[in-house]
Amino acid sequence: MSEKTCKDITLGAAARFLKRNDDYIILTHASPDGDTLGSAYALYYGLKEIGKSAEILCPDLIPAKYSYFAVKTDHIKSEKATVIAVDVADEKLLGALKDSFAGKVKLCIDHHISNTRYAEKLLLDSKASAACEIMYELLVKLKVNINDVTAKALYTGIATDTGCFKFSNVTAKTHLITAELFDYNIDAADINRLMFDTKSKKLLQLERMVLDTAEYHFDDKCILLTVTEEMQEKTGCSGPDLEGIAIISRSVEGVLAGVTIKQTGKEEFKISLRTFEPLDASEICRSLGGGGHKGAAGVTISGTLDMVKEKILSAVKTNMEKTNVWASADK
Amino acid sequence: MSEKTCKDITLGAAARFLKRNDDYIILTHASPDGDTLGSAYALYYGLKEIGKSAEILCPDLIPAKYSYFAVKTDHIKSEKATVIAVDVADEKLLGALKDSFAGKVKLCIDHHISNTRYAEKLLLDSKASAACEIMYELLVKLKVNINDVTAKALYTGIATDTGCFKFSNVTAKTHLITAELFDYNIDAADINRLMFDTKSKKLLQLERMVLDTAEYHFDDKCILLTVTEEMQEKTGCSGPDLEGIAIISRSVEGVLAGVTIKQTGKEEFKISLRTFEPLDASEICRSLGGGGHKGAAGVTISGTLDMVKEKILSAVKTNMEKTNVWASADK
Repeated sequence: MSEKTCKDITLGAAARFLKRNDDYIILTHASPDGDTLGSAYALYYGLKEIGKSAEILCPDLIPAKYSYFAVKTDHIKSEKATVIAVDVADEKLLGALKDSFAGKVKLCIDHHISNTRYAEKLLLDSKASAACEIMYELLVKLKVNINDVTAKALYTGIATDTGCFKFSNVTAKTHLITAELFDYNIDAADINRLMFDTKSKKLLQLERMVLDTAEYHFDDKCILLTVTEEMQEKTGCSGPDLEGIAIISRSVEGVLAGVTIKQTGKEEFKISLRTFEPLDASEICRSLGGGGHKGAAGVTISGTLDMVKEKILSAVKTNMEKTNVWASADK
Repeated sequence: MSEKTCKDITLGAAARFLKRNDDYIILTHASPDGDTLGSAYALYYGLKEIGKSAEILCPDLIPAKYSYFAVKTDHIKSEKATVIAVDVADEKLLGALKDSFAGKVKLCIDHHISNTRYAEKLLLDSKASAACEIMYELLVKLKVNINDVTAKALYTGIATDTGCFKFSNVTAKTHLITAELFDYNIDAADINRLMFDTKSKKLLQLERMVLDTAEYHFDDKCILLTVTEEMQEKTGCSGPDLEGIAIISRSVEGVLAGVTIKQTGKEEFKISLRTFEPLDASEICRSLGGGGHKGAAGVTISGTLDMVKEKILSAVKTNMEKTNVWASADK
């Protein structure tokens, strides 16, 4: 589907579309998070309420922690399906499902301003903190009965995409919709504990080791944390466990660049960079062959740990000089 | 003021009281947090709007991070003052100000169900997540103009007392009031970063040391962390810096009781207890002479560290047995 033929539609038009069609396949993005899953399941439950059949297809395994709303759905034959994508900004993000569904998405419901307009119809609200905000409004527009599980799915998406109402994407509307969701039995505190405050013993042990590696550079404006293969083996922490480590690096007072170096092979390291203005993580990582957003980006570099540290520190220094946060470049 | 003569009043009566009197001294509790300070300052700004004089007295130094709303207030002679306490559940919590103001509080505005009814009049809403929720409603009742700084103070109290909308004290009303506060320029994301995601270098160093002390008990359902005086001296962390440590203890998977023991004297230890249902932190701490909420409570115990550990572990065990989460009491 080319950009030219993608049509922006309203909530009302989207509701009519859902009533008119049937046999939906709802696609989520790869590495599914609370918002893509929450909005997919809320839509699924809403469609069931109006007597439709629907199946949710996720390119990756759905993490067990979402099992309080993520149930088994219908099976829909893809030949006759009406395909919808939720919280998917780009067909590339369909991962393993891309080959089967590229060019076949009839309706995309999304909140990313970067949406590539790959669908036939697009319900986009880039001011929404989460796709689940839009999905709540769509269910209200459809006048379907929202049950407790649907409300939990919607709450999960909003809470996870806003860092539990912490980030700058939160608006008055975010809180108003959330207030409505509190009319149901959503056990919000339990959801929040599961999503935000549950660390395994082994992760706590890894965090202790990682804190031992803390190095400060450039008048303490940059912190560098290292996670070696040895630490991962010793604690038994792997891939998804490590997501939270980068958060530590962005939480130190006065730090503008938080670098987390994770060893992924004998001489291969994956760098997660978190920056605050005026620094630009995306620019720094791009200069080394990586990419990402302004505040969070990444890059994989080969070499010894010392070489990798030197490369990333040098790139951070260049950006600091360019943005005048650290004038004394000859330090 | 004895319990018998403490009179419960409504929002309307509290508003009339504030209009009728003048020269207010507003007391906060010791070890001030976002809610006692936020509600005190919101009240201060509201009183200024209706032409009253008011001074805020805090038993301890106000941490610099609250300076975006905590300004210098008027000076009121205590002889002629009308004394109000906000978010102060018990006169004991007035700390250094107790001797001067015990028995003199005319109006207490609070949300703790454990309020000891020490004031002449009490505006209590134990369903409010924060004193700032009540204060918002009081300012609306007073029909005063709420400005950006007042809104920031109110948001700060609500956000900090709910762990940024994470805890079980959050209600639909919490989110509705917060939505109203978003009508002002509150820069919520900046406040949240300051309150929740900013750690000093020294605190990061302390956390590393504290993680080294982690002990697991009762089939890993209880974690015990210790902060010794030596650690505090070595890192230069003191009182307010330590608030966040207790949070670590509640974030470990499967843990129902998170105990943080902080040394406050040679043989004196302050315990912060965080529990999850069915355990009751308030009941456990009360059995040792302390108090608090169901999910978060505290108590100070004298003795050696080993004795203190034994006492708190024994009290936790009793509550675990009573609530059947840990049946094998003879372990």
